[in-house]
Amino acid sequence: MNNWAEIDKSAKEWVKEAGERIRSSFNTTLSIQTKSNPNDLVTNMDKETEQFFLEKIRNTYPDHFILGEEGQGHELASTDGIIWIIDPIDGTMNFVHQQRNFAISIGIYENGIGKIGLIYDVVHNELYHAVKGEGAYMNGIKLPDLKDVPISESILSLNATWVTENKRIDPNILAPLVRDVRGTRSYGSAAIEFAYVAAGRLDGYITLRLAPWDFAAGLVIIEEVGGLTTTLDGEKINLLDKNSILVASKSIHRAILSDYVKKQLKEDYDR
Amino acid sequence: MNNWAEIDKSAKEWVKEAGERIRSSFNTTLSIQTKSNPNDLVTNMDKETEQFFLEKIRNTYPDHFILGEEGQGHELASTDGIIWIIDPIDGTMNFVHQQRNFAISIGIYENGIGKIGLIYDVVHNELYHAVKGEGAYMNGIKLPDLKDVPISESILSLNATWVTENKRIDPNILAPLVRDVRGTRSYGSAAIEFAYVAAGRLDGYITLRLAPWDFAAGLVIIEEVGGLTTTLDGEKINLLDKNSILVASKSIHRAILSDYVKKQLKEDYDR
Repeated sequence: MNNWAEIDKSAKEWVKEAGERIRSSFNTTLSIQTKSNPNDLVTNMDKETEQFFLEKIRNTYPDHFILGEEGQGHELASTDGIIWIIDPIDGTMNFVHQQRNFAISIGIYENGIGKIGLIYDVVHNELYHAVKGEGAYMNGIKLPDLKDVPISESILSLNATWVTENKRIDPNILAPLVRDVRGTRSYGSAAIEFAYVAAGRLDGYITLRLAPWDFAAGLVIIEEVGGLTTTLDGEKINLLDKNSILVASKSIHRAILSDYVKKQLKEDYDR
Repeated sequence: MNNWAEIDKSAKEWVKEAGERIRSSFNTTLSIQTKSNPNDLVTNMDKETEQFFLEKIRNTYPDHFILGEEGQGHELASTDGIIWIIDPIDGTMNFVHQQRNFAISIGIYENGIGKIGLIYDVVHNELYHAVKGEGAYMNGIKLPDLKDVPISESILSLNATWVTENKRIDPNILAPLVRDVRGTRSYGSAAIEFAYVAAGRLDGYITLRLAPWDFAAGLVIIEEVGGLTTTLDGEKINLLDKNSILVASKSIHRAILSDYVKKQLKEDYDR
């Protein structure tokens, strides 16, 4: 039997410890490399932090699987068993340029079901945390269920890229939404954006391509505050692949799908 | 004779005190009204904070002028004399929705010349501060001069609105810039965005319509780290009117003007 209370306790302790290590690193020199895309940065701290979690998990839970952004974990073809899905530094570009607005993101899944979600905004020392069925918390304070607001009073996180010519979406699909909402924001860290939606500071977040480690923790936390996470087409998220993401309160989620995404897709078909 | 050191000391003390009052207000109920535009929010805290500064300034410096967002100050037709240009809460929408990512912004000008700039990120307790000719500081730590980076490695603050059909700018002008930069962000508070540029966390910030109280402090701080603030056409800012804003390090400022804004304007003329 798995003792989920113990797993949860370990995960929280390790996240806090990793955060402390990252904070201490601000005074040392950062080694920055680029991955496949010149703007896809990775630092020694990304790798060291992932390695830190890997060692802790392997030593304590040798039968658990690990899926990590820096690729030091397992190659997984199925969601069977217990999987830790880890982004050691979500928002590496912010980490490099701003030394803030990044987070450690850990989702722990059992047979494809999200059990624990942890998003740690390291610099602001804010830990967003949820255990399936037990509610979501920010530094121990329970987060209330998301409120229903109309689109005209909502604030969405949506990067300017998605309403400009790009490889993933017709910019005309989301442009009317940008005009209709009260405001848009963009923070450059999916984990922070999920946490902001969970805390009611954003009413939704849309992006076109996230990897499992970007959303694994967020999914669990959002569910615990009564929000919805799907692909931008309203489909179920594939936990082992890249997905587009629409995360919002139920009413905003429904409105975005029916009045913007599907309406526009329909107009495309009608032409 | 004006004692600028004394004015500076007063301004810093008052900003800190006002910040403390705003932080304490988080536990009390906020009264929210809308101004001309339904999304232009104003709260009792905006008004009370402006009133707090007005009383302090009137009592201590009765011959100084005051230009404030909430309109309780003077109606000014000229920049003669000493003018305090005040936004009690820059980013009211963030204040209402997020209880963070807003700032107190105060610029003090003498005969149109910026002498003191103060931007106080209240929740994160970060005070950005500059006195003309004496450098810029964040919580007492000197901010270094802005670095020259190429557009391809820059992060700009630019709201999705400006690359979507809108009333102020052809969305095609800035769209190529969105594609060419390393990333875009949007925080929803001009003062925070100026502060981020000053601290090197953003390489530039573009917006289409700011009032004097949104940029008065930022202008002084940016100048002290070697950055440039002009309208998006590269013209001098009018201190008493609304302006478009392009603020960036010198190299990014030059590149945006010559390779995007003016190039596009030229293509418009050539058609």
